[in-house]
Amino acid sequence: MIGQTSILQAVPKQEAKTRKMKTKQRILITSLALFNELGEPNVTTVDISNEMEISPGNLYYHYRNKDDIIEHIVAMYEQDMAKIIQAEQALEGLVEHWLFLKVIVEKNWQYRFIFRDFENLVSKYKTIERKLYRLQNKMMQAMLGFIKALVSPEINLEHFHHINALADNMAMILTRSPLQHQEYNSNTETTPSDLLNHTCFQTLITLWPWMSFENQNILEELSMNY
Amino acid sequence: MIGQTSILQAVPKQEAKTRKMKTKQRILITSLALFNELGEPNVTTVDISNEMEISPGNLYYHYRNKDDIIEHIVAMYEQDMAKIIQAEQALEGLVEHWLFLKVIVEKNWQYRFIFRDFENLVSKYKTIERKLYRLQNKMMQAMLGFIKALVSPEINLEHFHHINALADNMAMILTRSPLQHQEYNSNTETTPSDLLNHTCFQTLITLWPWMSFENQNILEELSMNY
Repeated sequence: MIGQTSILQAVPKQEAKTRKMKTKQRILITSLALFNELGEPNVTTVDISNEMEISPGNLYYHYRNKDDIIEHIVAMYEQDMAKIIQAEQALEGLVEHWLFLKVIVEKNWQYRFIFRDFENLVSKYKTIERKLYRLQNKMMQAMLGFIKALVSPEINLEHFHHINALADNMAMILTRSPLQHQEYNSNTETTPSDLLNHTCFQTLITLWPWMSFENQNILEELSMNY
Repeated sequence: MIGQTSILQAVPKQEAKTRKMKTKQRILITSLALFNELGEPNVTTVDISNEMEISPGNLYYHYRNKDDIIEHIVAMYEQDMAKIIQAEQALEGLVEHWLFLKVIVEKNWQYRFIFRDFENLVSKYKTIERKLYRLQNKMMQAMLGFIKALVSPEINLEHFHHINALADNMAMILTRSPLQHQEYNSNTETTPSDLLNHTCFQTLITLWPWMSFENQNILEELSMNY
């Protein structure tokens, strides 16, 4: 009988815990959606609790303030991106690189508020500054891998001292291009998927003059799929 | 005697007019400086009048609201940039292109708040949207000119269908790169001049694999001057 009682008691406890977990997680998801849509400077904690139809007090029970919410979102982004970047070592050929790049671009798109005014964000929230620079650096390193893998073997990169500058440009294009072209096309029916394919293309076109004829043809074909 | 009196009367009138003109102009210059430093969303008309030590009423005498100020600033930027872009036709050789590019990059730097969160700005201030897209398009056209002038004559660009995509990337790098690298180097003693030279280099490195050996050497030398 005692055992049965404790099981019955445990059920509501578990539910309460799940509900609490859910609210905690829902706050992050709602905040992320609002930041992406309206831009981080235009969203307050009151906006977030209004959107969720919870009291500001309930929100503050889970997170100290907006800084705390942003820290947790950036931590989620870092975890997701770390898992993705790990997969790069196994890539073979341009098609696999394209698909891998699309996964990075999709992840950045999920957290696109970060790149809307990156400079403002890192100067306002000092606690995420190092994390975000580390992530940008990881994306740049991934692009270095792309250059080494996709440049035609006839070209000797040892004589080219500026491979980092090129990787830096590619990393900038992959984060910025979807935002920019989203606006250009805001009146047309461009779907995010088109936007993200376009971003992959814009990033890889940087390497076009150095690609083998075969890879140029593959990139041409991939570009026609959007 | 009548003539003399009217001259004497005219002097204070002229002075009052100059003072009025000065305040009107000073409001724009102060606003621009604050927008660049703090980001446009973080600056109100009250901040601007406080910074100038004038009353908000005096500010509203000259401009209806913040939108009005932003419209006037973007109009100044457009006028300045139109004059610069005109000069492109006369360029010869990589060094002249570099110097011309630096003038564009310097002008963008003067108005850098526009590029901090471009997407937010154009969606918030609909009256400047077309003007800014037209300007972005002009920069992209200027980059098309760069590609045609700087790509080695041995390369037949007729077979390359993606010249616009490349020009688009270059235009993005020239507006975004100074902002991004400003933050990276915020703790070092990087001067704006270094930043702007670096931006010219980052923009032109895109064309490296297509440049003649001679132009590659010139670009290498130019890059060492910063």
